[in-house]
Amino acid sequence: MTTPSQLSAASQPRYAGAAVPVVVLVSGSGTLLQALIDAAADPAYGVRIAAVGADRDGIEGLARAQRHGIPTFVCRVRDYPTREQWDAALAEEVTQFEPALVVSAGFLKLVGPHFLARFGGRYLNSHNALLPSFPGIHGPRDALEYGVKLAGATLFVVDAGIDTGAIVAQCVVPVEHDDTVETLTERIKQAERPQLVDWVGRLAREGFSVKGRRVQLGRAAR
Amino acid sequence: MTTPSQLSAASQPRYAGAAVPVVVLVSGSGTLLQALIDAAADPAYGVRIAAVGADRDGIEGLARAQRHGIPTFVCRVRDYPTREQWDAALAEEVTQFEPALVVSAGFLKLVGPHFLARFGGRYLNSHNALLPSFPGIHGPRDALEYGVKLAGATLFVVDAGIDTGAIVAQCVVPVEHDDTVETLTERIKQAERPQLVDWVGRLAREGFSVKGRRVQLGRAAR
Repeated sequence: MTTPSQLSAASQPRYAGAAVPVVVLVSGSGTLLQALIDAAADPAYGVRIAAVGADRDGIEGLARAQRHGIPTFVCRVRDYPTREQWDAALAEEVTQFEPALVVSAGFLKLVGPHFLARFGGRYLNSHNALLPSFPGIHGPRDALEYGVKLAGATLFVVDAGIDTGAIVAQCVVPVEHDDTVETLTERIKQAERPQLVDWVGRLAREGFSVKGRRVQLGRAAR
Repeated sequence: MTTPSQLSAASQPRYAGAAVPVVVLVSGSGTLLQALIDAAADPAYGVRIAAVGADRDGIEGLARAQRHGIPTFVCRVRDYPTREQWDAALAEEVTQFEPALVVSAGFLKLVGPHFLARFGGRYLNSHNALLPSFPGIHGPRDALEYGVKLAGATLFVVDAGIDTGAIVAQCVVPVEHDDTVETLTERIKQAERPQLVDWVGRLAREGFSVKGRRVQLGRAAR
């Protein structure tokens, strides 16, 4: 027998249970994080944001998470004697939330070997350039200086290099002749956000594996 | 008073006179060359293919030119004691046709300082990758091995580097999961050809200048 209260609660167990736990790392205002939070509000998206971590205090990204009742943590490099110890501590913090996926949504720190030993192959980052062109923290500026006519964003599985991991998805935007770093950065972000949201959902729902330079959807392939 | 014969001949002086002389360099079958020949058949395109040069004998690219009554020349590296002398000889051959623009349409040789001293800033090449990614002669293969999701073609003004010159235009094609080097190369070529034809026409008709990394249309800017 099904009562109305059971019906209304029907999606809850699926969201809490079958939804894939994801930890999101941020360093700033968290607009990409907000897009993930909004998407995860729909049970069909299949993602539960288990926690939001940051490398600094007092940022809007953490405030967003708190407003949505999502656990947060901060792991600052300067609180550890060495970068390596910070890396190990970050891995510990993230591990507590048992995520299936970790997503860098504008997280400005490079993780190290401890983190990659735990989350390698399931730590995603989005870079605002058409990799392998313009890796590093100045993608749009470097693209403008080079004079490319097409720019874009690359979602990839982080490896030990700087923006060198296996590519999940790429999207393209035009470079206009009067672009500034700001206008190009913003245009890329408009394309980057839905790409990130779409693919985090697909990877979470369908599962995936990384074989060499290829990211393959599907749990069977694991 | 205008007679029918005057009307039918009306476009001829413009084509022969105002059309911009272009020398095309080839190394193979000349499919890009054919696209330029076809476009130049229309006087409105504004280009006269003054000559077709090659670095080898017996290629279809030369045969195409001859079938259309276009002068041809061959300048082989092995016919010269040094690469530098070949470069100077190539520059001499091209100079005879007084081109405003020189276009590499699958020309597989890197030109040297003699050639660039004469034609630098007006020698165009099309590369089958989204530069600065994947320069060199294996663009599609390197793109597939890296695992990018977007590939394309870049039209640029040749400088002394390998595929490093100022970019005129870029176009994008998707990489499919089952692509081979052959299928990807062909898909890029389908996009590369109209881009080359469109831009050679625009550059010829409107004039252009190269300032740093920027290619600006318009004779006034010269």
